[in-house]
Amino acid sequence: MSIKGAQTSAAGGKHTAAIRDEFWGSYIKLVQDVVIPYQYEALHDRVPEAAPSYAIANFEIAAGRKKGQFGGMVFQDSDVAKWLEAVAYSLKLKPDAGLEQRADEVIDLVGEAQQPDGYLNTYFTIKEPGKRWTNLTDCHELYCAGHFIEAAVAYYEATGKDKLLNIMRRMVDYIDTVFGPEEGKLKGYDGHQEIELALFKLYKLTGEDRYLKLGAFFINQRGQKPNFLVEEWKQRGQVTHWTGRTEHMDPAYNQAHVPVREQEVAVGHSVRAVYMYTAMADLAALTGDTALQEACERLWNNMTEKQMYITGGIGSTHHGEAFTFDYDLPNDTVYAETCASIGLIFFARRMLELAPEGRYADVMERALFNNVLGSMAQDGKHYFYVNPLEVWPQACTHDPGKHHVKAERQGWFGCACCPPNVARLLTSLDEYIYTIHGDTLYTNLYIGSELQATLSGTDVAIEQHSSFPWAGKVTLRVNPERAAEFGVALRVPSWSDGIQLLVNGQPLRDEVSAGQGYLVIRRTWQPGDVVEVVIPMQAQRIYAHPNLREDAQKTAIQRGPLVYCLEEADNGAPLSSISLAENGGFTDRFDEGLLGGTVVLEGSGLCTDPHSWEGGLYSRKKPQAQPVKITAIPYYLWGNRGAGEMAVWVKEGRA
Amino acid sequence: MSIKGAQTSAAGGKHTAAIRDEFWGSYIKLVQDVVIPYQYEALHDRVPEAAPSYAIANFEIAAGRKKGQFGGMVFQDSDVAKWLEAVAYSLKLKPDAGLEQRADEVIDLVGEAQQPDGYLNTYFTIKEPGKRWTNLTDCHELYCAGHFIEAAVAYYEATGKDKLLNIMRRMVDYIDTVFGPEEGKLKGYDGHQEIELALFKLYKLTGEDRYLKLGAFFINQRGQKPNFLVEEWKQRGQVTHWTGRTEHMDPAYNQAHVPVREQEVAVGHSVRAVYMYTAMADLAALTGDTALQEACERLWNNMTEKQMYITGGIGSTHHGEAFTFDYDLPNDTVYAETCASIGLIFFARRMLELAPEGRYADVMERALFNNVLGSMAQDGKHYFYVNPLEVWPQACTHDPGKHHVKAERQGWFGCACCPPNVARLLTSLDEYIYTIHGDTLYTNLYIGSELQATLSGTDVAIEQHSSFPWAGKVTLRVNPERAAEFGVALRVPSWSDGIQLLVNGQPLRDEVSAGQGYLVIRRTWQPGDVVEVVIPMQAQRIYAHPNLREDAQKTAIQRGPLVYCLEEADNGAPLSSISLAENGGFTDRFDEGLLGGTVVLEGSGLCTDPHSWEGGLYSRKKPQAQPVKITAIPYYLWGNRGAGEMAVWVKEGRA
Repeated sequence: MSIKGAQTSAAGGKHTAAIRDEFWGSYIKLVQDVVIPYQYEALHDRVPEAAPSYAIANFEIAAGRKKGQFGGMVFQDSDVAKWLEAVAYSLKLKPDAGLEQRADEVIDLVGEAQQPDGYLNTYFTIKEPGKRWTNLTDCHELYCAGHFIEAAVAYYEATGKDKLLNIMRRMVDYIDTVFGPEEGKLKGYDGHQEIELALFKLYKLTGEDRYLKLGAFFINQRGQKPNFLVEEWKQRGQVTHWTGRTEHMDPAYNQAHVPVREQEVAVGHSVRAVYMYTAMADLAALTGDTALQEACERLWNNMTEKQMYITGGIGSTHHGEAFTFDYDLPNDTVYAETCASIGLIFFARRMLELAPEGRYADVMERALFNNVLGSMAQDGKHYFYVNPLEVWPQACTHDPGKHHVKAERQGWFGCACCPPNVARLLTSLDEYIYTIHGDTLYTNLYIGSELQATLSGTDVAIEQHSSFPWAGKVTLRVNPERAAEFGVALRVPSWSDGIQLLVNGQPLRDEVSAGQGYLVIRRTWQPGDVVEVVIPMQAQRIYAHPNLREDAQKTAIQRGPLVYCLEEADNGAPLSSISLAENGGFTDRFDEGLLGGTVVLEGSGLCTDPHSWEGGLYSRKKPQAQPVKITAIPYYLWGNRGAGEMAVWVKEGRA
Repeated sequence: MSIKGAQTSAAGGKHTAAIRDEFWGSYIKLVQDVVIPYQYEALHDRVPEAAPSYAIANFEIAAGRKKGQFGGMVFQDSDVAKWLEAVAYSLKLKPDAGLEQRADEVIDLVGEAQQPDGYLNTYFTIKEPGKRWTNLTDCHELYCAGHFIEAAVAYYEATGKDKLLNIMRRMVDYIDTVFGPEEGKLKGYDGHQEIELALFKLYKLTGEDRYLKLGAFFINQRGQKPNFLVEEWKQRGQVTHWTGRTEHMDPAYNQAHVPVREQEVAVGHSVRAVYMYTAMADLAALTGDTALQEACERLWNNMTEKQMYITGGIGSTHHGEAFTFDYDLPNDTVYAETCASIGLIFFARRMLELAPEGRYADVMERALFNNVLGSMAQDGKHYFYVNPLEVWPQACTHDPGKHHVKAERQGWFGCACCPPNVARLLTSLDEYIYTIHGDTLYTNLYIGSELQATLSGTDVAIEQHSSFPWAGKVTLRVNPERAAEFGVALRVPSWSDGIQLLVNGQPLRDEVSAGQGYLVIRRTWQPGDVVEVVIPMQAQRIYAHPNLREDAQKTAIQRGPLVYCLEEADNGAPLSSISLAENGGFTDRFDEGLLGGTVVLEGSGLCTDPHSWEGGLYSRKKPQAQPVKITAIPYYLWGNRGAGEMAVWVKEGRA
């Protein structure tokens, strides 16, 4: 096999980074120490408190090692793939012979389950052997293949072992005989996008054009007339895998309503959407396809400027886990799935490769520090799939329209899409810190790390120290192997005011330019140069666009990258009785004992006095309000002190 | 047959009333001129723009007049019954030989569809002949019978014709052989309560104890262990009529989770609930059962003091068209079905018979003038089934969680439960104005009308003139056949302040006492005495209990019995940008040209200036607010000027 060259950024400029960060390091350690081993046990149905996964058992049956029925969801295989991918990243960060051994064994099993023609999917192998490729809309065959391709690439890059890579190349060779523009091949694509971005990863690793071509085919074919998913559904007798016969089939749910270059707004299932946009951006970068890049920008703008929660959550409704329409961002019936925000981070990363604009990194940071980080409990074993911005626990249990919202993180599900996605994101977080354009290194995230890059033909090591998210002090030690001219760009976060920059203790004059959300320092760097950045972090009030009706006349509180929230544990209930004083400030203090240590904010406001209420349900007499102290904690820490009310958006009233 | 005596109030004291009211008269005329004829055509599948009803066709097939399949819902028969009941009330108000002829023909058809053993139900006669009484939970057999009993009683009272009455007495005789405590009989009851209240009407008309006994059996058996509905569902193999096999069956949906006397809070499908509470109150009044009366009071208090919208709507969620829990009253995902408020009015009427307390009439008035009245368009052909308190039309079409909410009244549905219910309520509105306790006449609603009653053994005619809902002037001309001492009680509405009372132009001193929401005048009345009541109507702000999170720090506007709302047509959009000045007043003016003539309210407040917005979706800069004039119209008139935003609850802010 031919391997083009590992660890290449699409935007050019080789680089590798390793996380050395107190804040994120503890989460990565949690993933390594708890999540990956726990998931391994779960995949083997050995976690008593979790519903059986059946995922490994399915492979054992497909491999002929044992007899039995297929178990779990039609896409259950992907949980094995996501675990392998997270293991790969983890091994890259920290060798672990035992873990690698277990992964090798799983890979051996996967190989045994592969069919003679290269096909790999336990559902169709065990349960519906004659039905391959008859229900692309629902059955995730290419989706599962995509996750295994991602795992194969990651595992090769981490260990140099190519067994899984070869398994998946055989699978892709087989897929290539089934799908394509040629006579007799299916003109289809998967109902759940994923294989596209995976094929581009495989292409970047191997340099083999047919992977690029197949991925491009899937992207380009999507939404063409006649609509493949609709025709396929008709051919099946209008039957879906999930609910039986249906009267209606909406390809917008799968972003297959029109060709991708014609799509104007983010629609449908939000995870499918961002996985597709990620692949579109990859393809645009690989081919220079400006129409595709424009579509990516359009969809990015719509999604982040009209349909994104302040926490970086996307998907306003649990009906189809989907986008709804512009400015429709209800806080309490929200979906904002963890996986969708992870996909948004994937997409943001690709947009940063297409164009070095800080706004992409702003969204990446927002989704990472809030929606994604908040999804995981501090034990690594409990998760939010849905990430609400307002919770009334009784409504979660007693109002059927809010049953999908949970007031506390849940144990591992049988269908555990989000936890392994968190695991693979956090163990590969090093890939999101920097991008390189030309000979300029763009710092997108302030996360302590060690970077090795080639800039202007010179090997450069950069050591980043960061006090995020509690303080805004960042230091970069720039160590070119010899003096060299290149650019180092530092992101100016959208929330920042008065950023200060020193190089070797001195302010810069001519060497720095500002634009597109970065300060770019272009100079001849000497080994040992030190860049110091101070980004003041004070609590700020954030307001929502007047069309965002849900948040009208309310404010959210943000400090640095962290969105804050009010919890019942600190402020009592109902939180709806509280309003923040219109012009007050906040005091901040680091509370070491609270939730593992966090900056707590305090402000002042008014709270309706329940004792002043006269009447039954309605009254002509307005209840009185009393001054109160208001306490806010970072959103990502909510729901860790028992079920209670929580709110991100708070009314503003007079002092 | 024996007929005990028509037109007897359960609370004693015969009386009959006839509406003579400009405001309500026009609605009753609309029902007579448009709704009843239109429904007749709809039932015959002759309305091109409405989905076929199949209701008459089903009877023709069951009667053997023609061949064909059953069409429509399992409870489609009830639409014929409700039409007949409305026709009966209408004939009582205004003879119409042609209409009576059509009703007689329908009754002949119903009679032909009755089976030799007395059974009457076209679904089971045509479609599932062997399956009678195998799915009480879902299939509405007793429910349909109940509606026909109500129609039969009303038609007899209106016309003196007993054909339908005899048909239904035969059906009840047959039901009596199937259900009851005796060995070998089913210990069941209908999944949708209705027959209970109908049997009590039949008892009151005929005086036959077995009807009382059967109705009491259904009430008393409900929720007993082992649970009939659950056992029946298991026997059917856990299959429901609607969705096939289900894993779970919740008898709380049918208020059958515990025996009725043990029920503490309103739960489940809201129409079922209030129909049952109505029958419970009937039974309590008929038997003096204090435990049952206490249960009625408990359920009343919970429902009206914890789970009722300010418009008199009940049912917070469209999932099961049901109650959720205390203080959960979302304005935009609301159900508040028209039929549920009509059932609430039934229940309120029965509670007024149990105890003369103005609070029951307050709720009756609230539901009637707001939720129910607002459900019907001024053409009589378009209806709201769901009555929201806040609407964003785009969300109704693009947010699946709000698809059940409509921004404009809809045409007649194939399953048209609400319009015929509105028709039968409005044509029988005379029954809701007065109740008699002892020798005191209680005036519950201020609606122009002519009453004939017997008080202290004296025939009394009372002519009420009312300027409601636009002004609070009411005149009662009291005409006893000779001078007599009795009480005349005038309700003091909960919204009133400074009610004034004159008899023959003079204020009263000793003859008037106040209590339980009434002013009671006890004196020797002379023929021609005139009572004048002036209830000042000024716009008021109403506040919600602090636990009602949805309305926290907001206000609603009410003037007299009418709740007001803001519409986009008057105030622009988004309405969420508007806040009412905290301490401002309202001016009111009658606008003859607007929506058939209405009192419009104007106040002042602030509106976010969209041009002051700087930023994308979120911004650190707060948008500015500008002074605006705020215009409110009665809630019942909303949605008549095209699809637009509407809100009942409005934020309050500084002037």
